[in-house]
Amino acid sequence: MLFWRFYQSNLMMELSDIREAYDRIKENIVKTPVMTSTTIDGMTGCEVYFKCENFQRVGAFKFRGSFNTVSQLTKDERKRGVIAHSSGNHAQALALAARILGVHATIVMPQNSPAVKVAATKGYGAEVVFCENTTESRASVANELVETHGFTLVHPYNDHRIIAGAGTAALEFIEEVGQLDYIFCPVGGGGLLSGTSIASKGLCPNSKVIAVEPQNADDAYRSFKANKIFPSVNPNTIADGLRTQLGELTFEVIKKHVDDIILVTEQEILDSMRLFWERMKLVVEPSGAVALAGLLKMSEGFSDYKIGVIISGGNIDLSEFFEIYSKLIT
Amino acid sequence: MLFWRFYQSNLMMELSDIREAYDRIKENIVKTPVMTSTTIDGMTGCEVYFKCENFQRVGAFKFRGSFNTVSQLTKDERKRGVIAHSSGNHAQALALAARILGVHATIVMPQNSPAVKVAATKGYGAEVVFCENTTESRASVANELVETHGFTLVHPYNDHRIIAGAGTAALEFIEEVGQLDYIFCPVGGGGLLSGTSIASKGLCPNSKVIAVEPQNADDAYRSFKANKIFPSVNPNTIADGLRTQLGELTFEVIKKHVDDIILVTEQEILDSMRLFWERMKLVVEPSGAVALAGLLKMSEGFSDYKIGVIISGGNIDLSEFFEIYSKLIT
Repeated sequence: MLFWRFYQSNLMMELSDIREAYDRIKENIVKTPVMTSTTIDGMTGCEVYFKCENFQRVGAFKFRGSFNTVSQLTKDERKRGVIAHSSGNHAQALALAARILGVHATIVMPQNSPAVKVAATKGYGAEVVFCENTTESRASVANELVETHGFTLVHPYNDHRIIAGAGTAALEFIEEVGQLDYIFCPVGGGGLLSGTSIASKGLCPNSKVIAVEPQNADDAYRSFKANKIFPSVNPNTIADGLRTQLGELTFEVIKKHVDDIILVTEQEILDSMRLFWERMKLVVEPSGAVALAGLLKMSEGFSDYKIGVIISGGNIDLSEFFEIYSKLIT
Repeated sequence: MLFWRFYQSNLMMELSDIREAYDRIKENIVKTPVMTSTTIDGMTGCEVYFKCENFQRVGAFKFRGSFNTVSQLTKDERKRGVIAHSSGNHAQALALAARILGVHATIVMPQNSPAVKVAATKGYGAEVVFCENTTESRASVANELVETHGFTLVHPYNDHRIIAGAGTAALEFIEEVGQLDYIFCPVGGGGLLSGTSIASKGLCPNSKVIAVEPQNADDAYRSFKANKIFPSVNPNTIADGLRTQLGELTFEVIKKHVDDIILVTEQEILDSMRLFWERMKLVVEPSGAVALAGLLKMSEGFSDYKIGVIISGGNIDLSEFFEIYSKLIT
């Protein structure tokens, strides 16, 4: 029983983990700006602050966790190199973190990945290995390379070091703007949400942490309500960063620190992207607009709260946007 | 002769005019962020800083000059109201400045103005009066209203107060980043360029001020080279804010303080918009991307300079962008 308690408390991350991560990464990340909008304040009747991780290196919060992880590898692990399977922001974040720290990175990507993402990943110095277009193939190709070369596999979210790094965005945010009543954060695999909730509850114990998820990828919502992890099955959302399912570590943190998970429609995500674009002059990717969509949905009846919203990233190229735009105008 | 000298020196504006304007407006403007990009540093071999006036109130630097102007009107002038003819950022900037200061604003707009711009101007509390779609009609309708109602006509750039207000962006910029070797600024009517050049030469006497103009609206370039003002005839550029011609006041300042004017093509403007979008996650209007286009054109052979670039505004709605985008991909 004593052992069990020790094990539990050891598992459960704390604000100090995030502070330590921050000390590790602060010289290499962008201290991203916090922005406001009188339009959105007017729409919600609240004082709303946006933490702009779309301005982070590689265009998303992911760099914080990757750098925190790679910088903690042993000398031997660094020498052997790191690997990830991803076609998204995690791939680029790990590639850049590895390059800065002088570590070889291999990224396994599906053959049908957009050329622009492959080029960007290679541009950060990673070696790209292609696999078939299935989740199984990605994992098996990566595992084979781990076995052959002794690479360290870096999971995109189900890892203490990734979570602690991700939480540094909320740490910076709250230290800059002060106590918040609510903090809105997107949820996919739960890495950003876990880190955000630990930082929020640590720094503002009275704040409510609201996770926002696309209705068309509602596995975290259902998991949270049913108290067991549901897989993400055929998620059909433009918010490509949020199609993943919760991990065991992130689920534990979320159960403890998150107050609620709410759902938003595809149209609500698109409308929020448009607001960012037209009123705040910010390029935000669909996943990055989800938290604002949740705030706008929930804010009926809100007034005078001080609210933080995390913009998780801004990686959307013109051709993607063109496709999304054609949906917007229908 | 003495009188003439007195008159001249009185005409010529100084850094102190900009500092006074700043004291007048600082509580009501956004102190816009300065951003950087490792990609653009890499492309130019320089250290490049961007002053983001796309984040200014109404989405453009114009608010600085409007607020500075309206706040200096006499009690009687304020009571009678202000007027402008514009379908662009000046209209919205004047409308908002007037509303904040409790002054009635009338904006004369061509009948074919985009509905979104009319709505935005009304949204800031201005009365919109429509005219025919010619420059002559705009001026004559405005002048009639001035005669009938005693409104004060606020010129978009050929006014000391507008120039001094516009110059506060460069004042903030240089006070934040320190001495610059070069500063790149777009030129249309020359209000922003005049203010920027006065601030730059006042604060960094060794800096070079480079104005950038669309090749398809090269009247300022020709005026600068020939030492007389050429009119802007049928300017065919997507940079709609830069289709105007120099004014007498702005030309005097530009001749004194600007080191060179260079031209950029439409494609170069589009490419810079895309760079802002994809690499810096910034929504920048075509006119706002012109200075970067100029830097990229001129920077061959540059190295290790510390460079400032003014992003003048970010007002471009999705439908406009859609049209521009279709040009981009050809």
